Amino acid sequence: MKRKLKKIFSPIDDDLREFNAHFKRLMSSNVRIVDAVAKYLVTHKGKQFRPALLLTAARAAGEPQSITYVTAVVVELLHTATLVHDDVVDNAELRRGFPTIHKIWRGKVAILMGDYLLAKSLIAATETGSLEIMNIIATVAKRMSKGELLQFQKSRNLDITEAEYFQLISDKTASLISACTELGAVTVNASPAYRQALRDYGEYLGIAFQIKDDMLDYESSMSLLGKPVGHDLADKKITLPLLYAFRQAPDKARKRIIRTLKNGAGKKEIQEIVSFVVDHGGLEKARRKAEEYRDRALAELGDLPDSPAKAALVELADFVIHRKK
Amino acid sequence: MKRKLKKIFSPIDDDLREFNAHFKRLMSSNVRIVDAVAKYLVTHKGKQFRPALLLTAARAAGEPQSITYVTAVVVELLHTATLVHDDVVDNAELRRGFPTIHKIWRGKVAILMGDYLLAKSLIAATETGSLEIMNIIATVAKRMSKGELLQFQKSRNLDITEAEYFQLISDKTASLISACTELGAVTVNASPAYRQALRDYGEYLGIAFQIKDDMLDYESSMSLLGKPVGHDLADKKITLPLLYAFRQAPDKARKRIIRTLKNGAGKKEIQEIVSFVVDHGGLEKARRKAEEYRDRALAELGDLPDSPAKAALVELADFVIHRKK
Repeated sequence: MKRKLKKIFSPIDDDLREFNAHFKRLMSSNVRIVDAVAKYLVTHKGKQFRPALLLTAARAAGEPQSITYVTAVVVELLHTATLVHDDVVDNAELRRGFPTIHKIWRGKVAILMGDYLLAKSLIAATETGSLEIMNIIATVAKRMSKGELLQFQKSRNLDITEAEYFQLISDKTASLISACTELGAVTVNASPAYRQALRDYGEYLGIAFQIKDDMLDYESSMSLLGKPVGHDLADKKITLPLLYAFRQAPDKARKRIIRTLKNGAGKKEIQEIVSFVVDHGGLEKARRKAEEYRDRALAELGDLPDSPAKAALVELADFVIHRKK
Repeated sequence: MKRKLKKIFSPIDDDLREFNAHFKRLMSSNVRIVDAVAKYLVTHKGKQFRPALLLTAARAAGEPQSITYVTAVVVELLHTATLVHDDVVDNAELRRGFPTIHKIWRGKVAILMGDYLLAKSLIAATETGSLEIMNIIATVAKRMSKGELLQFQKSRNLDITEAEYFQLISDKTASLISACTELGAVTVNASPAYRQALRDYGEYLGIAFQIKDDMLDYESSMSLLGKPVGHDLADKKITLPLLYAFRQAPDKARKRIIRTLKNGAGKKEIQEIVSFVVDHGGLEKARRKAEEYRDRALAELGDLPDSPAKAALVELADFVIHRKK
């Protein structure tokens, strides 16, 4: 999968190198424990999806500037900060197939390191000298934490509505992805029309991405995803496939599953819920919804001039809903 | 104590009211759990020492502007964010004599709420439209989390040096207090000389404040401080009074205490350590050091024109090292 993504992002290979140089420099510190954690994060760096997306959007709308690379670092730091905190919140054992910060060090270190990365992100943002960029970043940081709080409050309620689910994933996931494509445009002084098209593309892409993420929890196996099947379910999170299955299942079947969920699901029960979701078309309907958002994302790209970067954005929209992990 | 502080800050009574109006408005949200936590924080608001200090510094150097109040909200939000996270990190049960967020809700909510408050703080900072202010805020946020990480790494090492202790409390505590006094000056367009004097006053005040805080852990009783005596010790934190006692005690007594600390101190052992610190002059030497920093703080105020606000800053310097909680 990582290889596939690498291929899609090949038009910005040089830009990614430039970004990584900035990133490494900004991650160094004179505090041993900070350096140890930072080194671990750089070594086990993820797919750098968000900075790569920002750079691609920038190339699709103009010529990346020095400020573009700095802004790419800002979003990667912000994303990493939220991952580190999310892993504490979810008590996750693995991230990217490797033990999480809070499992290796301690929850305390993970909380502080997340704060540190967030602050670093903001310092990098002030380096851009642009209040507009800072404002986009601060607003995204707020929306993401609000989304996570909303998830905490709502998603364990078995009566979460479809509208609430979409609000939640927009705040939690799409806000940052949309900020990436918008910031790419902002940093190359794109026209208002291009800027809005890229921002909206990012919003729809982000929603498609998260729907697929929630589908993968039902589809994947431990070895591929680096986290156990049905992890969300074990955590009693209600996502779109289950929400749709609830809507389409007969009363009796739905009530049985709700009982199972309330009692706390073990391995056998999770298998039962997964079957319920598949049997009542929840996964299928979620897939169609993800495709709908992919199409809306693609429609936004219409007016952008043809370029390898634009082609990459087109490919990406398909990729996010077809990936296997 | 709160009454004493209220009296000191009486020259800025109207400014505090203005600040609180801004603060309340900025804390409201449309997410139930966020609102519940925010309401709890507003109801159990602390002494608002940092915004009050910022407003006093502003009055001492000029006339507070609309930007001054917004910046006061920024520092209070930032401070509250770090408190919420610190309580998770320290697994504290009480804050301001009331149960902590993470005891009432859960650790997860506290982490997310801290992130949310931090993001809110930054959004308020962008409202000032000043990159300079944003930069000061981002840098302070970084220094505070770095300080906490350093504390985590160092203070349980029984060989923390005096220099490391001072670096740690400068990052952890004085950086924000110094930012408050500097920001007060910045928001009223004070001269560079006044700005630097106020920044340095804040740095010294902050260090004196933290030394006293660490002394109070030895001095106070549960009912006064809202946290048990010897809390730092139970957590194996080495602070200045113990550091000085180690330096002044005979080898044999020191080694016995180090053994006690390593074995994990219960109630009886904590009493033993407190006696050790008192008997070997650790508390007394820390008190003299706090006075030294108070004097340095006062010396910085020399050139500022006389005013009720300046008089408040003078009183404050004494207050922070003589408070009983």
